[in-house]
Amino acid sequence: MRGKSGPRIGSDMSNVGAIEHGAVAIREGKIVAAGPEDEVRAQLEGVLVTKELDAGGRLVTPGLVEPHTHLVHGGSREHELALKLKGASYLEILANGGGILSTVQATRAASEDELFAKAKISLDTMLLFGATTVEAKSGYGLTLNDELKQLRVNKRLQDSHAVDVVSTFMGAHAVPTEYKGRADEYVALVINEMLPEVKRQGLAEFCDVFCEHGVFTVEQSRTILGAAKELGFGVKIHADEIEPMGGAELAGEQGCISAEHLLAASNEGFRVMAEAGVIGVCLPATSFNLRAKHARARAMIEVGVPVALSTDYNPGSSPTESLQLVMTLGCLNLGMTPEEVLTAMTINAAYAIGRGERIGSLEPGKDADLVVYNATNIAYLPYHFGINHVDTVVKRGQIVVRDGRLVSEVHA
Amino acid sequence: MRGKSGPRIGSDMSNVGAIEHGAVAIREGKIVAAGPEDEVRAQLEGVLVTKELDAGGRLVTPGLVEPHTHLVHGGSREHELALKLKGASYLEILANGGGILSTVQATRAASEDELFAKAKISLDTMLLFGATTVEAKSGYGLTLNDELKQLRVNKRLQDSHAVDVVSTFMGAHAVPTEYKGRADEYVALVINEMLPEVKRQGLAEFCDVFCEHGVFTVEQSRTILGAAKELGFGVKIHADEIEPMGGAELAGEQGCISAEHLLAASNEGFRVMAEAGVIGVCLPATSFNLRAKHARARAMIEVGVPVALSTDYNPGSSPTESLQLVMTLGCLNLGMTPEEVLTAMTINAAYAIGRGERIGSLEPGKDADLVVYNATNIAYLPYHFGINHVDTVVKRGQIVVRDGRLVSEVHA
Ligand SMILES: [Zn+2]
Ligand SMILES: [Zn+2]
Repeated sequence: MRGKSGPRIGSDMSNVGAIEHGAVAIREGKIVAAGPEDEVRAQLEGVLVTKELDAGGRLVTPGLVEPHTHLVHGGSREHELALKLKGASYLEILANGGGILSTVQATRAASEDELFAKAKISLDTMLLFGATTVEAKSGYGLTLNDELKQLRVNKRLQDSHAVDVVSTFMGAHAVPTEYKGRADEYVALVINEMLPEVKRQGLAEFCDVFCEHGVFTVEQSRTILGAAKELGFGVKIHADEIEPMGGAELAGEQGCISAEHLLAASNEGFRVMAEAGVIGVCLPATSFNLRAKHARARAMIEVGVPVALSTDYNPGSSPTESLQLVMTLGCLNLGMTPEEVLTAMTINAAYAIGRGERIGSLEPGKDADLVVYNATNIAYLPYHFGINHVDTVVKRGQIVVRDGRLVSEVHA
Repeated sequence: MRGKSGPRIGSDMSNVGAIEHGAVAIREGKIVAAGPEDEVRAQLEGVLVTKELDAGGRLVTPGLVEPHTHLVHGGSREHELALKLKGASYLEILANGGGILSTVQATRAASEDELFAKAKISLDTMLLFGATTVEAKSGYGLTLNDELKQLRVNKRLQDSHAVDVVSTFMGAHAVPTEYKGRADEYVALVINEMLPEVKRQGLAEFCDVFCEHGVFTVEQSRTILGAAKELGFGVKIHADEIEPMGGAELAGEQGCISAEHLLAASNEGFRVMAEAGVIGVCLPATSFNLRAKHARARAMIEVGVPVALSTDYNPGSSPTESLQLVMTLGCLNLGMTPEEVLTAMTINAAYAIGRGERIGSLEPGKDADLVVYNATNIAYLPYHFGINHVDTVVKRGQIVVRDGRLVSEVHA
């Protein structure tokens, strides 16, 4: 990939700078040279090469980046599938003890160790599908202690797992049952107790909020984001997922690093996002699973919004860890090209979580995170769908997946 | 599963007879007892049990059955993805050297060994996703020798691979370029030369035909199916995939064992199929990948058509080997319940390829083909989508997949 600062926009998203017969040189976990093999070898003249990994003509990409997951949670919700298929509404599912609040209940009931064990399995799966950095949000605790519990699991994963975990506090994911009808009081709790304590303990880098009818209003979201920024958090927003209520515009106004979902966002919202440099994180697996409409990724690309893609992994609307299935959905349902999809899952996803200068492309100075696939070209990945093409994953220079299996679960 | 002869129809498709704390006893590759663990142990009183496999409370199903694949072919067609995304029509893709005829070209150009090596990788993948029996069609050769070449690969796979391969001759898959405008002459070749030679060499059990506008007419299809039946082939038909032209009705009239696709089939067609006992093979991964409409599986189930599901694995319209993704698509896009989906991939799929008395359920006397999943209930499989839940696969009593990896590629 060509060197260039900032996320890729417009036609630059197609311009992945693929190199035939390429090579990457790595020293102490960092890329020191990348390009055509003969050029890389020339640069290494006189350097003792201690180990060579031959990709055998196969496709190599930067490690994939997941900028939006709800990795840590209790329970699973397969029992809702039959209800959904019978046409039960979201409210009927809630009345049957389902929906997000059932995950809140399960997450509160789970111990930190239980949450860790479950999240670790999913993080392993993400890694096996090629992800080397994963953002993870809290937001199923909705009390100070339960939010901190989720965030401590993020930290334990970051400390013990090969995949880097970027932590986001999302206390404003839903209004908990005990605050029903008193959303403003819950917002006050988020702002006055949760945010400062999360900050004090250094457990999150970003703050996210679910701005949607029936969840948090634009005004409440603005208040939360403002408070978070004052404490030094980067800010994100789940915006315009169901109804166009100005979430995209708010993202621009508040200088969010990214806005998520955006299924119902307006053209004006996209224009504002483009101007403010807000990354649009599209989550086509969620649309697929909810049989909902799709984000207008092409409209975003056309007006210069940098688009990123993620699984939205969570137990309700998107129970999948496969970024490779998201590649296919990005092409088929969002109309993105395979090259745009790759950009959206590497450099743009990296910028969406504040890591664009360190990961997301194969450039000297960046972390040596890369994936070797059983494929010879980019288009093959979304084309041959539903399976796992990853052969090898390298994280900061260490082989962590080989022959499609985890070889090391702990990084040094 | 309860014992009952014939494919399951109507509400019986939901009735999978799931057993909590179940057990299966196996002797010489056959199931000798299946049911609640205490009952199975009681039946084994006095029998020396030489080996026990503890599924640890996890879900066990019959080995999955793929009743419709185009397993053996040359080449891949990922270069068509970008054209498709740009909105290129099927004809424009053909003009760019794409479409089915490009696979015909690649299949003709490939040696038998090359076809075998490529198909074996896909068959391994199908097995890893839980398939223990796979139907495979010819139809990318379209000359006598190239059709025989494909069918010989089916036979070599059947002889050497753990998965059983059921062979179908589909010379009438397309009109080859050299017969353009002379479809009747090609039909004559299929009937007078191909079918008898395939029969003589014992290379296929079924004959299939693509009945569709621009491919083979109802009349041509009737002629081919009639000739095939006279030679003793079981018959199948790709029917009403794009336009309602009476393919489902023809399936009933000709006593086809199954009719495939059926996206545009009429209610009258379903009624005729139900009456004649024709199994409807739905292929939702194809609809997904082509962004086409979905087969009306619920209408079929309501009128008593036994529904089966398959990947339709092929390099054009459905490049996936994952029956587990098809489970999700069956639920989300066809509105089938998880239990109906399981029936459609086991006993009904088995009947769709003439194996209903031997496989497709866990009943004494049947082949001991079974799958153990990292899941505790059926709904979990389609719910948690895009990944592989298979832990262990047993084929005729032998463990062939363990911990999600092939342990033996050759059966005794
Ligand atoms: Zn989310
Ligand atoms: Zn087919």
